[in-house]
Amino acid sequence: MIYMDNAASSWPKPEGVWLAMEKNIRNVGANPSRGAHRLALEAGRALYQAREKVAEFFGAPDPTGVVFTHNATAALNQAIKGYLHPGDHVVTTSMEHNSVIRPLRSMARRGVEVTVVQCDGEGFIRPEDLKKAVRPNTRMIALTHASNVTGTLMPAGEAVDIARQGEAILLLDVAQTAGLLPFSLHELQADMIAFPGHKGLLGPQGTGGLYIRPGLVLEPLLEGGTGSHSELEYQPDVLPDRYESGTPNTVGLAGLAAGIDFIRQVGADEIRRHEADLTAHFLEELKNIPGVKVYGPRDTAQRVGVVSLNLGDIGSSEVGFMLDRVYDIAVRTGLHCSPLAHQTLGTVRQGTVRFSFSFFNTHEEVSEAVKALRAIGREFLG
Amino acid sequence: MIYMDNAASSWPKPEGVWLAMEKNIRNVGANPSRGAHRLALEAGRALYQAREKVAEFFGAPDPTGVVFTHNATAALNQAIKGYLHPGDHVVTTSMEHNSVIRPLRSMARRGVEVTVVQCDGEGFIRPEDLKKAVRPNTRMIALTHASNVTGTLMPAGEAVDIARQGEAILLLDVAQTAGLLPFSLHELQADMIAFPGHKGLLGPQGTGGLYIRPGLVLEPLLEGGTGSHSELEYQPDVLPDRYESGTPNTVGLAGLAAGIDFIRQVGADEIRRHEADLTAHFLEELKNIPGVKVYGPRDTAQRVGVVSLNLGDIGSSEVGFMLDRVYDIAVRTGLHCSPLAHQTLGTVRQGTVRFSFSFFNTHEEVSEAVKALRAIGREFLG
Repeated sequence: MIYMDNAASSWPKPEGVWLAMEKNIRNVGANPSRGAHRLALEAGRALYQAREKVAEFFGAPDPTGVVFTHNATAALNQAIKGYLHPGDHVVTTSMEHNSVIRPLRSMARRGVEVTVVQCDGEGFIRPEDLKKAVRPNTRMIALTHASNVTGTLMPAGEAVDIARQGEAILLLDVAQTAGLLPFSLHELQADMIAFPGHKGLLGPQGTGGLYIRPGLVLEPLLEGGTGSHSELEYQPDVLPDRYESGTPNTVGLAGLAAGIDFIRQVGADEIRRHEADLTAHFLEELKNIPGVKVYGPRDTAQRVGVVSLNLGDIGSSEVGFMLDRVYDIAVRTGLHCSPLAHQTLGTVRQGTVRFSFSFFNTHEEVSEAVKALRAIGREFLG
Repeated sequence: MIYMDNAASSWPKPEGVWLAMEKNIRNVGANPSRGAHRLALEAGRALYQAREKVAEFFGAPDPTGVVFTHNATAALNQAIKGYLHPGDHVVTTSMEHNSVIRPLRSMARRGVEVTVVQCDGEGFIRPEDLKKAVRPNTRMIALTHASNVTGTLMPAGEAVDIARQGEAILLLDVAQTAGLLPFSLHELQADMIAFPGHKGLLGPQGTGGLYIRPGLVLEPLLEGGTGSHSELEYQPDVLPDRYESGTPNTVGLAGLAAGIDFIRQVGADEIRRHEADLTAHFLEELKNIPGVKVYGPRDTAQRVGVVSLNLGDIGSSEVGFMLDRVYDIAVRTGLHCSPLAHQTLGTVRQGTVRFSFSFFNTHEEVSEAVKALRAIGREFLG
């Protein structure tokens, strides 16, 4: 099996992720911060370590700004629904995932105004178009750091500047860049970033979170037991408890911490380099396949290792089916939960065949994928 | 280590839980329902199996009514915030956990009226008091199935009848009964039940869910990618996708399914019997310890295996600290995230020392706990 669906969920995980989870569930197991006995304290320590590692990894000034959630979608919902009020305006792009678009459409029904700025055929957005969309009541720019369809990198730095010129904050969806593209919040002054644990950070599913910069206060989306201020019938203000109710996924977060350990050990730059090399290799070879249409930028400096393509007019599902059943190559096909992105690319009907790499993919696997695509093209397109 | 904090999180887990998680993360790993390749289909199957097992376990008529969430708290938030509207009235009790009380207090600020019915000193609520609290605009009775402080069983069947007489539904918080007290939705016609995966169901942390009876429609709390109807910019109506956005905790749910397998193998009745025996043994022995105050009912038929107590006026944390450090017994102390329950019991200042059993506890361990309490009492109370 050649697994090239890492933009959906990375696989395999480093062995250490697995071992950390096993150690946690076998030896710790208790509920963190809900009890003072040794197992509960150890569980609390595991949780705090994960929080510190995430904060350090992103260059966040304060671990208590790291809020753990079920997945990046829950983090985006908390950010969007917890920050915006009726009458507020938000600017977003036509390359966003439904985890941004659907909460925004829902907020629009509650009186939030939404402007979707059109991206070009490669998924790029022009910063001046973002800027033009900003109004006096714009409170948020919600932007993906890289498209989950084309891998296109978005101008996050410029978006921060544009937000700062007005009264807006930048919410950055780093689902496709966390662990894959080195960045630090020291430089990239995004106000909130929403991250999944199970993609580039190499942790297990069921983990993710929202980083909220100091001073920014949201309405909590979920309220309940926090293990702190148990005497209060109202959600406490203390961070991160204000946004973390109920028992956390301690075993998953132990795995996430180990995923980050792996990235630091290998080096984030090395991971980026390897994936960029694989992507360049793939894009170069695709040029020689008749009938192939590649979406997104050709320059690997402008993208991450997510490559969408089609073979002539063959349905993307058909190509994906052949890749899976005949060539044992796992990719994702269809619309990738991003309907506006497909309108932007003109692929609403056909969808795309999406290859997405991880550090564990090899150049040999890329060559196999190219060979398979060539053979499928030959068979269907003649 | 004698672990008696199972009401917070059960530990240890059956070996099969761990093995199912390992198998899932090593061999499946992909994102369920987000791709048609074999790993994604296997992940989808794992997810569906977990859903079917939960539905079957609770006697739910339809697996698509089982919505998986991060924890029971997220499920309760979805139920409360997704169902109630300004002007609606909700009835609840003074024994509820903050996972019910805090979302209700939050809804009260948005115009929902909340009546908290007072329970007695053992945590019981009189059905007639519940009934008296119902008004023409009562839309929900939110009730714990058993108190997380005293273990007291609540009159869920009567509450359903009371709800049916008016225009209300019953939301049952089964955090302390799921997997511990055999019940079936065939008989107990609760409209929604919120369950944790990591307590009596013996799954890992990061799992839980909400069962919603067919025909009941809620506003989704979280919106985003569902892997279905990717062409829509709005949350799809299809179940359970409407309430499940973003990548689920597939590895955790594989563990939850294995936890349920273990319960079915041992027998839910056998688990209940063993825990009731441990509780009866403990309660009987406690009678002989001078100065001990036990909260909640003495009759094991009226409670689950959660026993709160105090030793004279010694602070509950002090007793817990001694149990942990000197006797290697893990319990929870303090307020247990249920401030109203402690007001009801008169233990707001002192908190309680809470022992909670699982199937893996033994009578020898109960005897050890009794011995330890007797020694601590002798030392502090003379």
